[in-house]
Amino acid sequence: MTRIRFHQELDELKHRILAMAGMAEQAVDLAVQAYSQRDLALCERVLTNEPGINRAEREVDEFAIDLLAMQQPMAVDLRFILAVIKINADLERVGDQAVNIAQRVMHMAGMPAFELPVDIPAMASRVRAMVRDALRSFIEGDTELAKRVLEADDEIDRINHEAFAALSACMQAKPDCAVQALDALSIARNLERVADHATNIAEDVIFWVRGADVRHGAGQTIAGS
Amino acid sequence: MTRIRFHQELDELKHRILAMAGMAEQAVDLAVQAYSQRDLALCERVLTNEPGINRAEREVDEFAIDLLAMQQPMAVDLRFILAVIKINADLERVGDQAVNIAQRVMHMAGMPAFELPVDIPAMASRVRAMVRDALRSFIEGDTELAKRVLEADDEIDRINHEAFAALSACMQAKPDCAVQALDALSIARNLERVADHATNIAEDVIFWVRGADVRHGAGQTIAGS
Repeated sequence: MTRIRFHQELDELKHRILAMAGMAEQAVDLAVQAYSQRDLALCERVLTNEPGINRAEREVDEFAIDLLAMQQPMAVDLRFILAVIKINADLERVGDQAVNIAQRVMHMAGMPAFELPVDIPAMASRVRAMVRDALRSFIEGDTELAKRVLEADDEIDRINHEAFAALSACMQAKPDCAVQALDALSIARNLERVADHATNIAEDVIFWVRGADVRHGAGQTIAGS
Repeated sequence: MTRIRFHQELDELKHRILAMAGMAEQAVDLAVQAYSQRDLALCERVLTNEPGINRAEREVDEFAIDLLAMQQPMAVDLRFILAVIKINADLERVGDQAVNIAQRVMHMAGMPAFELPVDIPAMASRVRAMVRDALRSFIEGDTELAKRVLEADDEIDRINHEAFAALSACMQAKPDCAVQALDALSIARNLERVADHATNIAEDVIFWVRGADVRHGAGQTIAGS
């Protein structure tokens, strides 16, 4: 494979991981919309779309592995391909979280609507921005943006912590709403996990761009071998 | 690097990922023991040990990447190294779950002990067996054992589902125990996530040994390239 051809293949890999990201983001959007509208048809769509996300994950993985096998990539390309393989796994799990949310909405749909002290759509909108920014930091190789994703995760953890406190107080005050409050808490946790995946992606971008592993606050640079 | 030397390096990589697994497993053990004994000193140990797990993750990753960079591995070795990189990320997140459990135990420790309708140590013991079997399937290249780990995950999901039902009923019946029941539910969920990581590891073992991707039930084999 020529060097030019190899770089075309890397572009194709980038294209495919972005398509994968689009599918995962759409799944979360649909699941949150299903929550807001208590719409079982939207839940069904999330469940129906999942096998396609899983298939896309396998295809991206195989494409990446073929690239590794066919060409001995230079350090920076090697790290890029490894970042894609890791990002790919995170995106597939974002899809799993969308399924978890949809299943929880299906559970709630049988119960009377209740005003719960948690703003799921607002939380979802922040989490969605994190996923989008993580992907954009990847496309543009923008480590500053990736670092802002890491900071945003602390904010999501704080929101989730507040939701936990408010919903547990609500359960004590109105035991009748306990089951629905638990469902809402599950959904908040699922969104927190989506945010965790966005964080993982941002860490992988920094790892790729800087050739340095900033995970867990380690600042040392690693010489490309 | 000679072929013999390369295989020595692969053995060293295997040795290091096993050491990493030992640290992650120990963290979960300590956290569950902290829960059973409401022991804050054990919680502290889990928190103190976490940076060491994170450091071990980075070292395994760099060792694996150096191997990929220095030698163009054959398909089976390439997949082995990629499996190690993925397993490594899962083990680090097992360590994160242990920290989450320890933090929840610290939250519970301030409240009066309450008989909760969930057997956390029993659940932990099953999850622990899954992690151990996933690692053993990796060392021995035993895909049958890996498949049994996948089956065990369904059982954990079922137990967690039952815990959810029992604890939400308990919250409705005794609002005073709501906060502690929520803590126990969080711990059950953390254990479920550890089981998910064991499942991911088992899938990676099958991917490596068979060169086939059985994730999401896909049975097709992939020609080594």
